[in-house]
Amino acid sequence: MKEVVLKQFAIGVDIGAQTAKIGVVDRVGNILDKTVLVSDNTNNPDIFINNLYNEINTLIHKNNIHNNITGIGVGAPSANYYTGEIENAVNISWCCGQQNIPFAQKLSTLCNLPVKITNDANASAMGEMVYGTAKGMKHFIMITLGTGIGSGIIVNGEVLYGSDGFAGELGHIIVEKNGRPCNCGRKGCLETYASAIGVARTAKQWLASTTKESLLRNKIDIETLSAKDVYDAAMQGDEMAIQIFEYTGKVLGEAFANFVAFTAPEAIILFGGLTKAKQFIYKPIVEAMQNNVLSFWKNKVKILFSTLNEADAAILGASSLVWNI
Amino acid sequence: MKEVVLKQFAIGVDIGAQTAKIGVVDRVGNILDKTVLVSDNTNNPDIFINNLYNEINTLIHKNNIHNNITGIGVGAPSANYYTGEIENAVNISWCCGQQNIPFAQKLSTLCNLPVKITNDANASAMGEMVYGTAKGMKHFIMITLGTGIGSGIIVNGEVLYGSDGFAGELGHIIVEKNGRPCNCGRKGCLETYASAIGVARTAKQWLASTTKESLLRNKIDIETLSAKDVYDAAMQGDEMAIQIFEYTGKVLGEAFANFVAFTAPEAIILFGGLTKAKQFIYKPIVEAMQNNVLSFWKNKVKILFSTLNEADAAILGASSLVWNI
Repeated sequence: MKEVVLKQFAIGVDIGAQTAKIGVVDRVGNILDKTVLVSDNTNNPDIFINNLYNEINTLIHKNNIHNNITGIGVGAPSANYYTGEIENAVNISWCCGQQNIPFAQKLSTLCNLPVKITNDANASAMGEMVYGTAKGMKHFIMITLGTGIGSGIIVNGEVLYGSDGFAGELGHIIVEKNGRPCNCGRKGCLETYASAIGVARTAKQWLASTTKESLLRNKIDIETLSAKDVYDAAMQGDEMAIQIFEYTGKVLGEAFANFVAFTAPEAIILFGGLTKAKQFIYKPIVEAMQNNVLSFWKNKVKILFSTLNEADAAILGASSLVWNI
Repeated sequence: MKEVVLKQFAIGVDIGAQTAKIGVVDRVGNILDKTVLVSDNTNNPDIFINNLYNEINTLIHKNNIHNNITGIGVGAPSANYYTGEIENAVNISWCCGQQNIPFAQKLSTLCNLPVKITNDANASAMGEMVYGTAKGMKHFIMITLGTGIGSGIIVNGEVLYGSDGFAGELGHIIVEKNGRPCNCGRKGCLETYASAIGVARTAKQWLASTTKESLLRNKIDIETLSAKDVYDAAMQGDEMAIQIFEYTGKVLGEAFANFVAFTAPEAIILFGGLTKAKQFIYKPIVEAMQNNVLSFWKNKVKILFSTLNEADAAILGASSLVWNI
């Protein structure tokens, strides 16, 4: 009788602009080992993918798990789950303006392992479902409140990729007609209000348009004012800083009320730097969502915060793609 | 060897406030026979379901298809696909205020056939995918522009039901903060602008707030002004009437741009009474959608119109639930 060996490790790769973080992860989300590869030192995709292969190979040998790897999961900007390609990732030097890099296929050939790729936000959502707060949920929306806003939508226990692989761009839902200009070239996107940059923009706008006293006025160069400054001021009880977070939470909650009418999720789960301000944004989010949601969803949809360690979450998310290969 | 008989007919039932329409449908969407049952003459769910059973039974015997029925599909207001229950359908007399009527189970027991139920808008979406314009599509959004706005979202070839069975209430996406009061108790819902009633509201509002000449001013009782009146005036070249449809199309197109960022559909398919004004709303919808959609979806998502016969579409949609039982 042939013995069935349950392959119990996945490689998770989180690709950012400067580095790629690589980890060996078991089925319950323990990181056995990890390493970091500098990635902004080349303009050639093949060189980067080869370097990545070498790092993965080293990790596998070091941990003596050659025959025990299910596959490699990769979270990367502009990654297309359907095609395995990285499409026009403008901030990644090794993409070098190339349109469609067959990343999964190249890495898979080198490593002789299955490779799945998706964008960072979808990877986060998968990670939350496999290892985190959303364990056991089949329908939820993951919102990453970072410099911008990323999102991953889970429907029936799977990432919603849509017809082209790019569904779930909720940071670019227009919440204010003719609102704040966005990097995407349009106006009024959610992320112009409710990301870290959005918080800083609200602060600058309020400081300029009111005479209200605030610790934020002590900042010598107002242009460098950040969400962190607003958080620090709020922690010292600064009224304007607290109101800025209340406003941010209100914008989010109103948007979430519309999101609920789309996919009727069990929960909306928040992750990312801005969630450090949980104590200031949670209540306004919930209030605005309850005030704006269709009555039969009132008090039904939970607002939760990720419990994954932020430093490891991206590796975990990427690795989680592997378990249903 | 046992002969495999492909059961080739489905019963489709479309339940409305006054009547239930019942049809026998084949796998390609031909209606073999149909009938109508008056349904507002009782306050008792069991009496209605028994009457429905009798009508279905008569149809089956009349057409001699006893052994050739795959199942019964039902489209009804407030129907929950997951539970098979009709939940709090306020406009249906035989529901009589009862919260959760186990409709599918009761009808299935009487008829000795599998029964699937869903709400009207989801049934329309299924019908379009199985027999209509969306044949072969795996990701699209169906919008019914009737008295209100209904919607059905198809993801991976299946209706998106969400955690509770009620996902896809896009008529109640808030498109205008503090906008027009809606029947749902909130303000600014899409259907207060872009349904038949929304068109009439725009007309009344514009007639009251401007002095612009219009055939619409000939209406003796302005309160009874309808979308049909606006359509008739637009067909006669009335400028205000045409602008009302342009505005309606713009509101829809702006909303659709946000919808695309959710599920990245291949197409948004329009159905219902207001689509008679296609010649006036199509271009404004497309323009507003292209002007507001995230750049990589520009010119990718199609706006299509249902090609199903409106009188039969609800029966077809309901029957289409059956083919994957």
